[in-house]
Amino acid sequence: MKRVYLDWNASTPLRAEAKAAMIAAMDVVGNPSSVHAEGRAAKALVETARAQVAEALGAEGADVVFTSGATEAAALACAGRGLQGAAVEHDAVSAWVTDELSVDPLGSVTVENPAAATLQLANSETGVLQKLPEGLAVSDMTQAFGKVPFAFNWSGAQMGLVSAHKLGGPKGIGALVLRRGLDVESRIKGGGQEMGRRSGTENVIGMVGFGAAAQAAARDLADGVWERVAEIRNILENALEDDSELPIFVGKGAERLPNTTVVAVPGWKGETQVMQMDLAGFAISAGSACSSGKVRASRVLTAMGFDEATASGAIRISLGPDVTEEDVLRFADAWRKQFKKFRARGA
Amino acid sequence: MKRVYLDWNASTPLRAEAKAAMIAAMDVVGNPSSVHAEGRAAKALVETARAQVAEALGAEGADVVFTSGATEAAALACAGRGLQGAAVEHDAVSAWVTDELSVDPLGSVTVENPAAATLQLANSETGVLQKLPEGLAVSDMTQAFGKVPFAFNWSGAQMGLVSAHKLGGPKGIGALVLRRGLDVESRIKGGGQEMGRRSGTENVIGMVGFGAAAQAAARDLADGVWERVAEIRNILENALEDDSELPIFVGKGAERLPNTTVVAVPGWKGETQVMQMDLAGFAISAGSACSSGKVRASRVLTAMGFDEATASGAIRISLGPDVTEEDVLRFADAWRKQFKKFRARGA
Repeated sequence: MKRVYLDWNASTPLRAEAKAAMIAAMDVVGNPSSVHAEGRAAKALVETARAQVAEALGAEGADVVFTSGATEAAALACAGRGLQGAAVEHDAVSAWVTDELSVDPLGSVTVENPAAATLQLANSETGVLQKLPEGLAVSDMTQAFGKVPFAFNWSGAQMGLVSAHKLGGPKGIGALVLRRGLDVESRIKGGGQEMGRRSGTENVIGMVGFGAAAQAAARDLADGVWERVAEIRNILENALEDDSELPIFVGKGAERLPNTTVVAVPGWKGETQVMQMDLAGFAISAGSACSSGKVRASRVLTAMGFDEATASGAIRISLGPDVTEEDVLRFADAWRKQFKKFRARGA
Repeated sequence: MKRVYLDWNASTPLRAEAKAAMIAAMDVVGNPSSVHAEGRAAKALVETARAQVAEALGAEGADVVFTSGATEAAALACAGRGLQGAAVEHDAVSAWVTDELSVDPLGSVTVENPAAATLQLANSETGVLQKLPEGLAVSDMTQAFGKVPFAFNWSGAQMGLVSAHKLGGPKGIGALVLRRGLDVESRIKGGGQEMGRRSGTENVIGMVGFGAAAQAAARDLADGVWERVAEIRNILENALEDDSELPIFVGKGAERLPNTTVVAVPGWKGETQVMQMDLAGFAISAGSACSSGKVRASRVLTAMGFDEATASGAIRISLGPDVTEEDVLRFADAWRKQFKKFRARGA
């Protein structure tokens, strides 16, 4: 039985367009900082990728600073600025900001002073979307980029964080996008690459993959691919509901990403569900992927007011364009089977 | 006429082994932090790559922390420690250390207090090798790794910096190597990847390429490939000398990398030579590749006591295993032709 990958918010399959562009870039030998023909050819790849990312993000005219991912971009944008944030931010942002902003039960965050705050566009665990206030200092746009229509230039944010591997690009490449005229203090110094914001020989193959993936993602989004994903997500949720005792759907009443479902069953540990589903052939997640594979009660769900038993009994199913109706119905069957066993044990 | 690439210290062609491994890794979808089968498969690629780099570097048992390159590794190893360095260090190291250590005319650096100092193993511009004192805090091993035999574990250094794209791996991936028991303050925080030293979803494809390239580089080194490169470099230097008015060979009397030649002609700007050679079909460099393509008198040559006219009249020719005797003789012919014109203009 083929495995079904339902963890697209953790990482996505590499798009064919990205793969082809990356393989072609492997033959470009030069260092983009070298002035000879080989160096200029590498530099051209970097600048094409930068323009592709800017266009897909609606950030024409803004500065796109390539980084090793959204996590590095978060450090570049947030470190040392004393920004206010909410507890639903990703760890990469939370590491640098407060968690003082209030979160309502549907996951919506209230920003008091946009110029001193950070706010994600979409939550990676729940998919809940936020309305960004004008003049917001920093927005983590990682999960929204490629899945919902928005333009950085119209988002209200001064700076944005994005990552390639959430939209079909390779892992280990991302960007900090900032409005022209703004600056950040460089944290990696040396050769002065990326307009002095971020030194180090460029990850040319990764940038090329990011550019190609961003372009393809923008095309898919315009073509309505994610509307179809939302339909399949709704089919999934209906199939999971088909039980006398309903699980809790987190964030369902909020505006959210078209691909994300969070189901919580108080007392049935998310990590157990992930392992049971893995054995049954399905890749899902309990909250954010985190480095050690350790699982704890979701900080995001706790911030939304869920109790410990619910917050630690949640799983995330996140879909992508390759996921079929048959895939999600098979998943729902397998999950309900385990759900019934859990209920039986508890009875 | 095929172009001849003689700028291997700036960046190297991607090795076939790295390319094949990277293409295979493109089909691994999981996030290494995910606990399901797809995540574990990605994690296995990362750990295999880590073991390959450790073995090639003679760093078994030490911690290999993958970074976006040696430049990031330098920041991680050096920032905020007030280390002493010499003016011949790479910009990525110089950004964080003093330039107080003395440099002799052959480029050799005297370290007074190893525990508070940084010293490169090989200079990227001149190829000059240093003897590392026992207990040295940090060594930039980027240019030496793969070209000369050494083992991190026997090097005397507490921490080492390396980069994939100097030995046939992809650009944008490197590592900080540190003796077990040491630690560094994380500069990119979040998910806690790389044992908490460096957060962010891993550049899996890049790591795989680094591992495969490091393994292949170690094999080549053991097979004596670089002895042949040294022979070709010597042929090049003899051919360049074949002139009534000799250019200056920088670092020739010192122990140095087998592939690097620096030739200086006082008054004949290095950048002009690079452009003339580029038009003639040869990729060389004037000192380190730097981000803007701007050229200034080499800081490294100035530190060795050369005057401004000489330091700004230097070019670097750096070879690799693919470079043939015919390639370097063609280069020497083309260069001598321009050299004679320069002399004629000056006369």
